[in-house]
Amino acid sequence: MLNIGIDLGGTNIAAGIVDENGKILRKGSVPTGKERPTEEVVKDIASLCFSLLEQEGITLDDIAKIGMGCPGTVDNENGIIAYSNNIRMENVPMREMLSSYFPGKTINLENDANAAAYGEYAVNGGGAKSFVFITLGTGVGGGIIIDGKIYRGFNGAGAELGHIIIQPDGEQCTCGIKGCWEAYASVTALIRQTKAAMEKDPNSMMHEWVADYGKISGRTAFECARKGDSAAIEVVENYVRYISIGLINILNIFQPEKILIGGGISKEGDYLFEPVKKIVYKYDYNKYMPKTQIGAASLFNDAGIIGAALA
Amino acid sequence: MLNIGIDLGGTNIAAGIVDENGKILRKGSVPTGKERPTEEVVKDIASLCFSLLEQEGITLDDIAKIGMGCPGTVDNENGIIAYSNNIRMENVPMREMLSSYFPGKTINLENDANAAAYGEYAVNGGGAKSFVFITLGTGVGGGIIIDGKIYRGFNGAGAELGHIIIQPDGEQCTCGIKGCWEAYASVTALIRQTKAAMEKDPNSMMHEWVADYGKISGRTAFECARKGDSAAIEVVENYVRYISIGLINILNIFQPEKILIGGGISKEGDYLFEPVKKIVYKYDYNKYMPKTQIGAASLFNDAGIIGAALA
Repeated sequence: MLNIGIDLGGTNIAAGIVDENGKILRKGSVPTGKERPTEEVVKDIASLCFSLLEQEGITLDDIAKIGMGCPGTVDNENGIIAYSNNIRMENVPMREMLSSYFPGKTINLENDANAAAYGEYAVNGGGAKSFVFITLGTGVGGGIIIDGKIYRGFNGAGAELGHIIIQPDGEQCTCGIKGCWEAYASVTALIRQTKAAMEKDPNSMMHEWVADYGKISGRTAFECARKGDSAAIEVVENYVRYISIGLINILNIFQPEKILIGGGISKEGDYLFEPVKKIVYKYDYNKYMPKTQIGAASLFNDAGIIGAALA
Repeated sequence: MLNIGIDLGGTNIAAGIVDENGKILRKGSVPTGKERPTEEVVKDIASLCFSLLEQEGITLDDIAKIGMGCPGTVDNENGIIAYSNNIRMENVPMREMLSSYFPGKTINLENDANAAAYGEYAVNGGGAKSFVFITLGTGVGGGIIIDGKIYRGFNGAGAELGHIIIQPDGEQCTCGIKGCWEAYASVTALIRQTKAAMEKDPNSMMHEWVADYGKISGRTAFECARKGDSAAIEVVENYVRYISIGLINILNIFQPEKILIGGGISKEGDYLFEPVKKIVYKYDYNKYMPKTQIGAASLFNDAGIIGAALA
């Protein structure tokens, strides 16, 4: 049997037909147009799914279940998107709305970060008893899988790992409070840190990099650090430390069998992960038992579709 | 059926006969004498248990299982105390050693903080789907119960909630690193904070309190703050804030249905908990779903015995 996974984002709706091993057989996307009435967005979601079925030469009868990941607070028990700032939805009876297009089908709603975590777990988790997925992107997202099940907290609002406070009264976070991990370890934060270092050092190689590429990105400091620029090296060292502090906290709380880190920045590979692991293992409270595996996620944008389909 | 719960501490061995509702029918304790060979400690544990059975007028046949909580890293799967600084044990085959006194009985080993958490959960958890127990004492201990099961991490070394870093490069923690929650929210930390405030303010009422009581304790600042001493009020306000930061992190990660806080300081009651709850609920990332219940634990030293017996 096959499943459909839907990743409802602030910009695009992505969907895919996914087999039981987490392989995407066919996928597509359309703009979300979140300013429109929800009915229209749901209609486009359904059209996208039916178009994928048609392209794949199958029908709804070949689909076992449909899952959707969406940003914000999701109440799967009642089939409701409780609140999502990103897609401008509040108390939307999404399951009921989708059901009119997919009558009789099991429809699961999931927070998008949890769905992505489940996707990475299903494909790359190796059956870990406890698994944590972190995305370093515009924000810092996370998901927790315990004994093969998504951990959501009693109210569905858990696993907001980006909002661990790592520096009281520190950097302002978009959530309204100060000092969240996200305010230090997101790519948004890295760009801010890069900009500050460039302002401090007019001779840094990073100025040339930015002149060549047009703007500061998450890659600026990493690429210049690899070439030996001292200001860039300092940015990367601090960023590595910020990532590590959150991971140490996660280890001391969960001792998960495996942590995978996703988001574009994870493409920096060993240059990022080796120093992170060195710090994290050094400060891990666990000194006597086997260590958590830490590595890069691999599914990127597909994680949400796969996880929504399989969760 | 009844169970035996054993709480093996650095100073005392406590044990109790516990019914299925978590009621202690009989309990007792003997000094640990941790400097002695482990064989002798285990012999005393067994003698204590048999003496309790005799006092209660029952035999080992009336006991369904035996559980022991001990500080440090415990490997229940293999029946081993992997490492415990407090009781000076390393790689001790505790289950095998206990089995010679209690042949044929199920014997469970558990980390002491996890056992205490399970005890509070069993008696005061109200069947919460997710439950976190925090003890504020010499250190900050914690335990996590998810779906009625102790969460230990894949290697048994999880739930070290006192070692969440809340202030990088902050106060030195006994674990070797700086800025752990324990270094701010333990009673040890409160005493340090009280001492510093007294040194800063020679007119504080806290000086008289200490002259009356002989030494600074966790109660010094609280009692003087209740009487309006401004230096003491500042100590309590800061301490409340330190407790709250760790709890905010726990909420944003777990969204547990219930958090109970134990240790002697929890006897401060609403004077401590009301301002803590106010801060925690304000900074909780969850704004749209039901809130975590936060309250005082009630079992104190019995929690470990009860939890070990029932877990």
